Amino acid sequence: MQRARDVSEDQLLEAFLPIIKSHNTKADRLMLGPGDDCAVLNLRDGLTVMTTDTQTEDQDFRRTWANGMVTSGYDVGWKAATQNLADIAAMGAVPQTLLISLTLTPDTPVTWVEDFARGVTEACTAQGAEKCSISGGDLGAGSEISVTVTAVGTCLTPVLRSGAQTGDALVLAGTVGTAAAGLALLENSSSYQLTPGLSACIEAQQRPCSPLASGATAAHQLTGMLDVSDGLLRDAGRIARASCVNIDIDAAALSPWVARVQEAADLCTAPSQNADDLALHWVLTGGEDHGLLATCPADSVPAGFTRIGRVTQPGDAVTVDGKTYRAKGWDHFEATAR
Amino acid sequence: MQRARDVSEDQLLEAFLPIIKSHNTKADRLMLGPGDDCAVLNLRDGLTVMTTDTQTEDQDFRRTWANGMVTSGYDVGWKAATQNLADIAAMGAVPQTLLISLTLTPDTPVTWVEDFARGVTEACTAQGAEKCSISGGDLGAGSEISVTVTAVGTCLTPVLRSGAQTGDALVLAGTVGTAAAGLALLENSSSYQLTPGLSACIEAQQRPCSPLASGATAAHQLTGMLDVSDGLLRDAGRIARASCVNIDIDAAALSPWVARVQEAADLCTAPSQNADDLALHWVLTGGEDHGLLATCPADSVPAGFTRIGRVTQPGDAVTVDGKTYRAKGWDHFEATAR
Repeated sequence: MQRARDVSEDQLLEAFLPIIKSHNTKADRLMLGPGDDCAVLNLRDGLTVMTTDTQTEDQDFRRTWANGMVTSGYDVGWKAATQNLADIAAMGAVPQTLLISLTLTPDTPVTWVEDFARGVTEACTAQGAEKCSISGGDLGAGSEISVTVTAVGTCLTPVLRSGAQTGDALVLAGTVGTAAAGLALLENSSSYQLTPGLSACIEAQQRPCSPLASGATAAHQLTGMLDVSDGLLRDAGRIARASCVNIDIDAAALSPWVARVQEAADLCTAPSQNADDLALHWVLTGGEDHGLLATCPADSVPAGFTRIGRVTQPGDAVTVDGKTYRAKGWDHFEATAR
Repeated sequence: MQRARDVSEDQLLEAFLPIIKSHNTKADRLMLGPGDDCAVLNLRDGLTVMTTDTQTEDQDFRRTWANGMVTSGYDVGWKAATQNLADIAAMGAVPQTLLISLTLTPDTPVTWVEDFARGVTEACTAQGAEKCSISGGDLGAGSEISVTVTAVGTCLTPVLRSGAQTGDALVLAGTVGTAAAGLALLENSSSYQLTPGLSACIEAQQRPCSPLASGATAAHQLTGMLDVSDGLLRDAGRIARASCVNIDIDAAALSPWVARVQEAADLCTAPSQNADDLALHWVLTGGEDHGLLATCPADSVPAGFTRIGRVTQPGDAVTVDGKTYRAKGWDHFEATAR
């Protein structure tokens, strides 16, 4: 198998660029793609939003997991794209371009690089961002694989975290908890049968899908928004603090998401613990699904969003059914649940 | 000494963000800085250019060099900013913002992070880009320090590599060869006295200065431009191939740059070799100074640029005084000189 150390940078780019260039034929804002000092884009008709995020091997993904599954280049590309696209969507903006810096170990298979490029472009297309170009990048070597994606989007009026009002509904698009359930399954080394339900959780961890279009489409109806990258409670807390409000989550409204991870919770719960508690815990504290959490006037929940709580009064706290959430029997998680 | 492993991410950001926020008070295009899902900028009055670049420990810098000198966080921040700002300048554009993703090892001193932030901001200010904001970033852990900067700028008409015309002058702003001389000095473990001339070469390697303003100011007079990141010959070759022209470099015109590295060449040349050859070799093949190499009509060389050659005829090759350059006695460099 050809590895990065066996080929030149030009040969690596030959594996990478055709996939990117084929994708870029759909991008109508890209005036000059990879090849000069910079990419050139026409973003004149809106405000520009941008974000950057790095995934590092063994910190953010493992090439091989305890349950024997592998993270492919496709998975890393997909997730790196999605993480950043979700941040654009969470501003109520339309993704316009990605820049990618890829650090490879000498033993990285060249096919990994092709898979990565395919993962990035197919993540864009599958999530409705097929016009988002990949306009630039950098290729280098290191002792671990590391991927940094910068995403750029445009919008007329960005939706910030700070606009939630007392009386607003708290609404959610996309999934929460499934990526955390998937991580637990990947790290579970006991022998178990992969059912469709369990596979869906693992896929949510490896190839998360964010409801990108819902963010831009609903923007004019929303008062605040972010993407759930660090868990529902923590991210709701960010809206609460930025907007100076208290937010109360309605646990019963979370039941569709709890149901999706119940099978994984049944499998991963220790005999002395309660699977229902674990399932709810994942939904309240699990990140990386990149669902969109927003606030809006209570009488106009936008299409694609579901009401899961409300903004109760001025303050800075988040409660569940009026109480501070404490994970029963999961004390080692408590620091992340607050 | 406090290290990254001893503090929380919030504490690391407390070391980093005040320096960035203070710098950002000068940025008039930044509508929303770090803290939400994305930064928001107003780039409506021009085309947007963007680029990204990663520096990885032991690939692009060493924390400690053979000559005993160290690369500080300040140096890494300065160089990461300059590399990317130079790419913006090389499009004839004005830098508007940087996004920074910082991967730290657990043993990284917290003061390193502060030094890094200072290096980034002071590199902007010292090179005339004080209005360029640092609008976003990401902080993570890894087994080696790695820094990815994405730079964004605006321009009315970008200067590409593909516009050089037969009869144009080849012109240069900034330095070439000094960063390569500096690298040789840093890797020279023999005992030697640091003179001001040698220190200037080392500084060019650790804290390069690109003539950013010259790029945007001269843009309307230039037919082609790039920044010299991989050496004069290789980068001139990129203009030649993109523009389908031959370029001839006038070796005598390079004498000011050769003179700057002569002292370092005298020190680093082996007894069997020729110091003059090494000095010229650095100027022709050394990268990382991030000078701006451009083409323009022969009768209107812009202020800040010096004529160092000419575009002779259609083709795709670069010559020096009409001949293909072959480094005498430096065969191990030949692959990079072509």
